[in-house]
Amino acid sequence: MTFKYKNVYINETSTITGPFEAKGPLGRYYDKSYHDLYMGQKTWEQAESKLLEESVELLLTKMDKSKQDIDILISGDLSNQLSSTNFAASHLSIPLIGVYGACSTSCLNLAIGANMVEKKQVKNAICSVSSHNSAAEKQFRQPVEYGGPKPKTATFTTTGAASAYLSQVVSDIKIDSATIGRVIDMDMKDAFHMGAVMAPAAAETIMTHLRDTNRLISYYDLILTGDLGKYGKEILKGYLISEYALDTKNIDDSACMIYDLEKQPVYAGGSGPACIALTTYGYIIDQMKKGKLNKVLIVATGALLSQATVNEKMTIPAISHAISLEVSK
Amino acid sequence: MTFKYKNVYINETSTITGPFEAKGPLGRYYDKSYHDLYMGQKTWEQAESKLLEESVELLLTKMDKSKQDIDILISGDLSNQLSSTNFAASHLSIPLIGVYGACSTSCLNLAIGANMVEKKQVKNAICSVSSHNSAAEKQFRQPVEYGGPKPKTATFTTTGAASAYLSQVVSDIKIDSATIGRVIDMDMKDAFHMGAVMAPAAAETIMTHLRDTNRLISYYDLILTGDLGKYGKEILKGYLISEYALDTKNIDDSACMIYDLEKQPVYAGGSGPACIALTTYGYIIDQMKKGKLNKVLIVATGALLSQATVNEKMTIPAISHAISLEVSK
Repeated sequence: MTFKYKNVYINETSTITGPFEAKGPLGRYYDKSYHDLYMGQKTWEQAESKLLEESVELLLTKMDKSKQDIDILISGDLSNQLSSTNFAASHLSIPLIGVYGACSTSCLNLAIGANMVEKKQVKNAICSVSSHNSAAEKQFRQPVEYGGPKPKTATFTTTGAASAYLSQVVSDIKIDSATIGRVIDMDMKDAFHMGAVMAPAAAETIMTHLRDTNRLISYYDLILTGDLGKYGKEILKGYLISEYALDTKNIDDSACMIYDLEKQPVYAGGSGPACIALTTYGYIIDQMKKGKLNKVLIVATGALLSQATVNEKMTIPAISHAISLEVSK
Repeated sequence: MTFKYKNVYINETSTITGPFEAKGPLGRYYDKSYHDLYMGQKTWEQAESKLLEESVELLLTKMDKSKQDIDILISGDLSNQLSSTNFAASHLSIPLIGVYGACSTSCLNLAIGANMVEKKQVKNAICSVSSHNSAAEKQFRQPVEYGGPKPKTATFTTTGAASAYLSQVVSDIKIDSATIGRVIDMDMKDAFHMGAVMAPAAAETIMTHLRDTNRLISYYDLILTGDLGKYGKEILKGYLISEYALDTKNIDDSACMIYDLEKQPVYAGGSGPACIALTTYGYIIDQMKKGKLNKVLIVATGALLSQATVNEKMTIPAISHAISLEVSK
């Protein structure tokens, strides 16, 4: 399902990260980074909620607005029952739409927000996501201190929060369209190979988007997937080449960009809702404003597993949502 | 934040429940009920996912439509990472927006769907929720077999799934407006008194709705809260009386209607996203079609706790979203 927009702009973004992201190749593109994972809080969950709340407050500061000026907050994270979002929202006091798409959440948020802004149902919307490495490890696998080994196909949950302010006020970055994906289940069960789990969903949504918009793959300067990682990216490319004879040279993956895969202990790359959001709101938008990119398709991907479903040996479905951005003329 | 609609209708609904709900006062209003909680599946989670999937399929049958005819599915449930929704959606193959508002999810879904239908961004939308007593107990507290005692203020998670089909095709039931709530945290920590946790959020959203629509409380024949339960309902009424001098005689609560609180072992009443959805889509809409109710405000309420936040002794925030329905003239 693809929506087209004429009057939706990203007026501002904010990005706040943890230490691994600050030391990564895109470190200089973030607004703020913490040097430890507790960020002055008692628990990982509270640290993540603080990140999310701070990212919204920073965004408001950059926009010279107050919480009362915001019509709607659309937010999601990886935590059970979106607890990071909930506590942040309880302090922010902005009407809240809580959403979950795992690591695809940022594009889901933007789609919902853009839909409402386009039709003037709201005058503005803030779209936010967060994730936290230690909180995610504790929730989905084991606490990091457990020291459990992982295979090379595993990914490393990004610690950070990223927010975007949307409105009809014209700015450099226009949201051109959004494609809401379908859940794809390829009977995969390997919770340590999220790239393989999500690549089919990314392919599905990319092809749906191109068909719905009647565009060639070459229309975009960059098609950026969320967190397929080193191996998932190759699986996606291989599939698009073999199945559709497509030239995939403009496809890259934020999981492979947000960290130095050679030097940082991040296995196959980043993951978590913050991965593509930090990359996009920090780096990609910067490149667009500098004229180095003009039309970009952001393809966030989510693996829809839970601790219970993995323990019960169920398959891992995936979903992907896409947003196309272009430099405003 | 309140949205007003001119052209959004609920064309059809479907309701499928577990055994406790079938034996409750509204049993005859549901489309289908199961006599056990496994429903032919191996796990509680799979049973809940099956319920959700079946409720959508039943809705399609009632509408004489196929999955390919549906533009968007907006769904949420109580399970970690919305696993019930995800597996159901993987079989349904309809573009999915996954949302989470705990027991407020049904009104959140309807608001998102109504927004898109009103502005013709989609021609139709299916809004679904589910919950399952045994799955919820296992996830939030302990497996039922543990036999842990509970205080009388505890509520009983409803087992069921409910879906609604929305479009601009005129039918008996019109969606008149939607109010998206804010997260309210009153520093409550009692995970066995959800009524007290959620009543403030319900009050907040009711008052916001009335102010935004410029309506008196008496405008509505019925204001139906989600699952405040026996004690939460009295807390809400007491607050509205003492704080706003309001006549609360038209306020009732689905948690108190869906079960026989005297005869069934359900403590203070029902809970879970399915509670208000089953009551509304099964019973309330039936009463509206029969002319016994004309204007109804559905006020779904959610307690935003997780197992981790309770274990870490954090407070329990709450949220409430509202939908006003009226008989179409």
